[in-house]
Amino acid sequence: MYKVAIIGSTGMVGQQFISSLQNHPWFEVTCLAASERSAGKKYIDAIKNSAGSVQWFGEGEINENIKDMTVKNVNEIDPSEFDIAYSALEAGAAQIESKFAEHIPVLSTASAYRYEEDVPILIPAVNDEHVSLLEKQKKRGWKGFVAPQANCTTTGLVITLKPILDEFGIDSVVITSLQAVSGAGRNPGVPLFDLVDNIIPYIPKEEEKVSIELKKILGNYDGQGIVDAKYNVSATCTRVGVLDGHTESVLVNTRNKAEVEDVIKAMNKFADSLAGKELPSAPKKLITIHKDPFRPQPRLDRDLEEGMTTSVGRIRKDEVFPNGIKYVLLSHNTRMGAAKGVVLTSEMLIKSNIIKN
Amino acid sequence: MYKVAIIGSTGMVGQQFISSLQNHPWFEVTCLAASERSAGKKYIDAIKNSAGSVQWFGEGEINENIKDMTVKNVNEIDPSEFDIAYSALEAGAAQIESKFAEHIPVLSTASAYRYEEDVPILIPAVNDEHVSLLEKQKKRGWKGFVAPQANCTTTGLVITLKPILDEFGIDSVVITSLQAVSGAGRNPGVPLFDLVDNIIPYIPKEEEKVSIELKKILGNYDGQGIVDAKYNVSATCTRVGVLDGHTESVLVNTRNKAEVEDVIKAMNKFADSLAGKELPSAPKKLITIHKDPFRPQPRLDRDLEEGMTTSVGRIRKDEVFPNGIKYVLLSHNTRMGAAKGVVLTSEMLIKSNIIKN
Amino acid sequence: MYKVAIIGSTGMVGQQFISSLQNHPWFEVTCLAASERSAGKKYIDAIKNSAGSVQWFGEGEINENIKDMTVKNVNEIDPSEFDIAYSALEAGAAQIESKFAEHIPVLSTASAYRYEEDVPILIPAVNDEHVSLLEKQKKRGWKGFVAPQANCTTTGLVITLKPILDEFGIDSVVITSLQAVSGAGRNPGVPLFDLVDNIIPYIPKEEEKVSIELKKILGNYDGQGIVDAKYNVSATCTRVGVLDGHTESVLVNTRNKAEVEDVIKAMNKFADSLAGKELPSAPKKLITIHKDPFRPQPRLDRDLEEGMTTSVGRIRKDEVFPNGIKYVLLSHNTRMGAAKGVVLTSEMLIKSNIIKN
Amino acid sequence: MYKVAIIGSTGMVGQQFISSLQNHPWFEVTCLAASERSAGKKYIDAIKNSAGSVQWFGEGEINENIKDMTVKNVNEIDPSEFDIAYSALEAGAAQIESKFAEHIPVLSTASAYRYEEDVPILIPAVNDEHVSLLEKQKKRGWKGFVAPQANCTTTGLVITLKPILDEFGIDSVVITSLQAVSGAGRNPGVPLFDLVDNIIPYIPKEEEKVSIELKKILGNYDGQGIVDAKYNVSATCTRVGVLDGHTESVLVNTRNKAEVEDVIKAMNKFADSLAGKELPSAPKKLITIHKDPFRPQPRLDRDLEEGMTTSVGRIRKDEVFPNGIKYVLLSHNTRMGAAKGVVLTSEMLIKSNIIKN
Repeated sequence: MYKVAIIGSTGMVGQQFISSLQNHPWFEVTCLAASERSAGKKYIDAIKNSAGSVQWFGEGEINENIKDMTVKNVNEIDPSEFDIAYSALEAGAAQIESKFAEHIPVLSTASAYRYEEDVPILIPAVNDEHVSLLEKQKKRGWKGFVAPQANCTTTGLVITLKPILDEFGIDSVVITSLQAVSGAGRNPGVPLFDLVDNIIPYIPKEEEKVSIELKKILGNYDGQGIVDAKYNVSATCTRVGVLDGHTESVLVNTRNKAEVEDVIKAMNKFADSLAGKELPSAPKKLITIHKDPFRPQPRLDRDLEEGMTTSVGRIRKDEVFPNGIKYVLLSHNTRMGAAKGVVLTSEMLIKSNIIKN
Repeated sequence: MYKVAIIGSTGMVGQQFISSLQNHPWFEVTCLAASERSAGKKYIDAIKNSAGSVQWFGEGEINENIKDMTVKNVNEIDPSEFDIAYSALEAGAAQIESKFAEHIPVLSTASAYRYEEDVPILIPAVNDEHVSLLEKQKKRGWKGFVAPQANCTTTGLVITLKPILDEFGIDSVVITSLQAVSGAGRNPGVPLFDLVDNIIPYIPKEEEKVSIELKKILGNYDGQGIVDAKYNVSATCTRVGVLDGHTESVLVNTRNKAEVEDVIKAMNKFADSLAGKELPSAPKKLITIHKDPFRPQPRLDRDLEEGMTTSVGRIRKDEVFPNGIKYVLLSHNTRMGAAKGVVLTSEMLIKSNIIKN
Repeated sequence: MYKVAIIGSTGMVGQQFISSLQNHPWFEVTCLAASERSAGKKYIDAIKNSAGSVQWFGEGEINENIKDMTVKNVNEIDPSEFDIAYSALEAGAAQIESKFAEHIPVLSTASAYRYEEDVPILIPAVNDEHVSLLEKQKKRGWKGFVAPQANCTTTGLVITLKPILDEFGIDSVVITSLQAVSGAGRNPGVPLFDLVDNIIPYIPKEEEKVSIELKKILGNYDGQGIVDAKYNVSATCTRVGVLDGHTESVLVNTRNKAEVEDVIKAMNKFADSLAGKELPSAPKKLITIHKDPFRPQPRLDRDLEEGMTTSVGRIRKDEVFPNGIKYVLLSHNTRMGAAKGVVLTSEMLIKSNIIKN
Repeated sequence: MYKVAIIGSTGMVGQQFISSLQNHPWFEVTCLAASERSAGKKYIDAIKNSAGSVQWFGEGEINENIKDMTVKNVNEIDPSEFDIAYSALEAGAAQIESKFAEHIPVLSTASAYRYEEDVPILIPAVNDEHVSLLEKQKKRGWKGFVAPQANCTTTGLVITLKPILDEFGIDSVVITSLQAVSGAGRNPGVPLFDLVDNIIPYIPKEEEKVSIELKKILGNYDGQGIVDAKYNVSATCTRVGVLDGHTESVLVNTRNKAEVEDVIKAMNKFADSLAGKELPSAPKKLITIHKDPFRPQPRLDRDLEEGMTTSVGRIRKDEVFPNGIKYVLLSHNTRMGAAKGVVLTSEMLIKSNIIKN
């Protein structure tokens, strides 16, 4: 069993790390860290609001032993006591994650290191060759490394683009996202009840993130670093009144002509990429294709395969590009797109012998 | 005062015709027609449900004289008693509208005649030269004509594309719509409460309608008929849990390079096209441009100018096309996009002397 | 294995019968019946809408063998081929259920027989002594019987009142319900999208049903029939924008003084009534008591114990009555309050040897 | 014109004071005060969020002169420069309001002084005789006074109880409230998106407030102070996914028997209490009675009379009390229940010569 610490453990993402790790066959949660404000409290008390109500946003119930663990001050713990750190930090992530990475691997939902040259944004089966880049972080004087998760809007998108890229090549990508509120806690600008009977047509920095991350994740590792892919990318990101699950309307101009049936075949083949690898958090299929044109729908389909598969529907040709292919995807933003997706990445790194204990 | 009949007057769209016409300075509502089932009832009783509750979906209150009018069987009234018919019919529209058009102008929200060669889809200030086509309908043996409204998703789109077309030309248009539920009453496939915490990624036939209508409305009238515009159009139409107001994420590849400021200037200029024409239902500005990137939002902005202006926000350049321009629009689907938009068209036809009394 | 027929199998409730029965250890679904319109189709085709989209509202997936079963015309099947019929009928329930009851036990969500003198409204552990009344239906010339389910608003209420009645007696009951939309499909008067940003303060006939059923279910069987309980009951039933789960604000005036701790003790004791009886659909606890005053909440708590437990929170004393006790309850209206609740009743009747095969 | 200052002017309630006062015939907004953080900014900038988006929650548009006013630090302005202060403060209200009351009348939505012995909770037409109590505040050494608004859940309730009290007397009141989210900004315990597909069955301290305020407002002023009414009051307060408008299910046991028609007559008579008094913010009718049992509905009815009337529907008798009368009410929590209600109170105080300039 790997001894793992969850840093930023009391927030929504931290709670989802607990859900993903507390019954995991490979990991033992040995430390729950958070800011000074929560330190010293029992975990169950640390997540109560001022009225005494437990604010739990993870899947299923919290294990009794987790409830009773004493939350540690993230600045006072010794990273070397653990094998892996999972970070759900927001403010201050850069500094704290670096302190942990001096000693151990850090897997993170934070964006702090996402755009650094020696940092890959790993998605199992999509860009496994990028793991070699982690080695470069040794030059920072780190024994460990930081491996950040992609933005939740990027994750489902690259998973569906990867088989298209491999089979047909890609010239351009146009998306409009309809994003769930569960990721919006941190965004300034929008009181959440604005989403009743409403749409917010703007999510600060989101479109830039999607464009940059897509090019990096689907780029090539040339032995020195990642050479960004050259696709033209156009993203419009909106927020809608859905609790969980990001829907994206995607239009791709492929380099070589692709028929609908060929795209389905390519996606289905890619969907099996993790089959047989025995990664506990992996879905049976990375992509689930829906034939019913009314699907995928977030409320009906987001929980398929425990939120770890990306649903694709409405695959069809399009006239606006010479080789236009369109589809609608649905990705669970707080599972595959956040904590549990990170846990899956860590499983891949263990299988690849990058993380050892 | 023009004597007007509203046919299909008891449904949601018929009610909105009443809202738009009952206090109108030019029109007198002299007949409310509906199917046999409602005929003979007082209007206020005809719109009660089986539990006796008035089901009123129009704006404001119903005038007392309208409440007391006796609903007529649409098959038993004499069209020649009226100057104009406004049709909110669904089933059977083709036959009934033709019966009326034999005698008088018919303005309609129905799609029955929308795609006929001798039928224009008129939007004031966008394609006023298409009115000449109405004359061709005389060949059908009609003294009047049928002038149908565009689909509600098309309306806001062509209003915003028109100034771009005039100033820069258009090569391609890509849209993803996030449509309100108020237009969905008739769609099979989706019980409406599916839209709580959900998105429906498909609206049957909607994408085809948008593509065909856009090319027709923005096409050229060559004296004989309309020559469709040649743009490549890609539409993905979705339904979201918003009560009123269609939001559209729009990407245009212009023929000639356009800077953001130029687009704003062109839209603002076009926005004034109806100014000074004294059309009672016209908004002061056909387009309202928002500088705040978080706008337009359906709940906050749909009622601007009584739902008759099209809101545009987030105008920006895009890299995926050589001359890419992107924006988000919001159009009120049951006002400018339905009954009140039709009334505006009839006002334009009166000013143009096409409709006379 | 009991051979069971589901009549009215294509609607929402019929689908939930399938969910509750298809993997049941005691039952084999041998017939899916519906109206003539669906007869002859494969089940999976019978539940598609006109656009070809499967409309499935049950829990989990449909078994493959169910998908392939041919739907029978309810008027053409022979009841004597089955051991039990489960009825999800609405219109025409009285006549069809009687035809089946001539031969076999009929368990039903319909209200057709609910208020007949020789018909009990059974809720396991609440009024098991009422089963004797089923015998009286023999006088109708029936070999079987009809056992209808309570209205979904009544079910959770009587489950929570029963332990209070047994320990302290009851004088008066005041409730206000906040009911989910999933039960509203049949109500006239309210288009469902009216529940976005809204409340409907009236549900036709619901308040009368609650009052009558409560008195009958908690009444005494005196060997001849049920003597209604004499409580004063006041109900206000409203519809809110919640998908599943009825919330009720309950105020009880007990006959004898009851402290909060005593009520909790009584409810906890009653909650175990089905423990050890090995009824496959029974929850571990009939009542789940929440200490957190912010609970129960429909979205967070309705699925506890697969929707078969009734959640109770905010138990407190009240000054308006001499012995006032107040609480908030949450009951899953489409599980314990509908099909799966009926299946539980049938399990109880089998254990009691009332139903045999 | 009275010179008025709005303190706490940048928050939601402060904005609604601006809406209610900026075009008022009697008042001139001469000062917008807020905390140090906003001081020195132009008002329009002070209400922008960190992303630069204007967060405006008032009715209609902000006047240009208001947008350009410089926000003052509430601790640095001189109260004696104004005739009236309107307070939308939360934290620190007690101290700041007292500083203003030393010089001028303070009308407030804050609860800081609501339960003090020398402070009435005024609702025009309900308890005008309580204004005499304001005089007692002179003993605090104040030239002005503090007149706080009732809690938004109390306001609609006492307006509907007052005519019942006057005609029939009241013994007991039982309510369950279904409250809108717009008042919930300050409540701990409930992230607002929890109200999608959900109900929160608890609002801290709300039930106590309703009970205490109801007894005080409907109490008698005996020349020295208010003698609380002696009614038994039972309140259950819940939060539902409605944007604006509190719905309440009310059950009253009257002292003397009341028929439904008598209650309607009493309410209609009371509804006219402010007629002819020429108070600019007063509704034509304080109470609007709905005959349709499906009304009032928050989305359809909350804006009647600009949110200043209280809607009442479903008036009926009830069996649980000897003289039971039940109804459903709807009150606009952010208009009559907040800023505009306070402005109405100030108008009444001016007409009564309590406030002079």
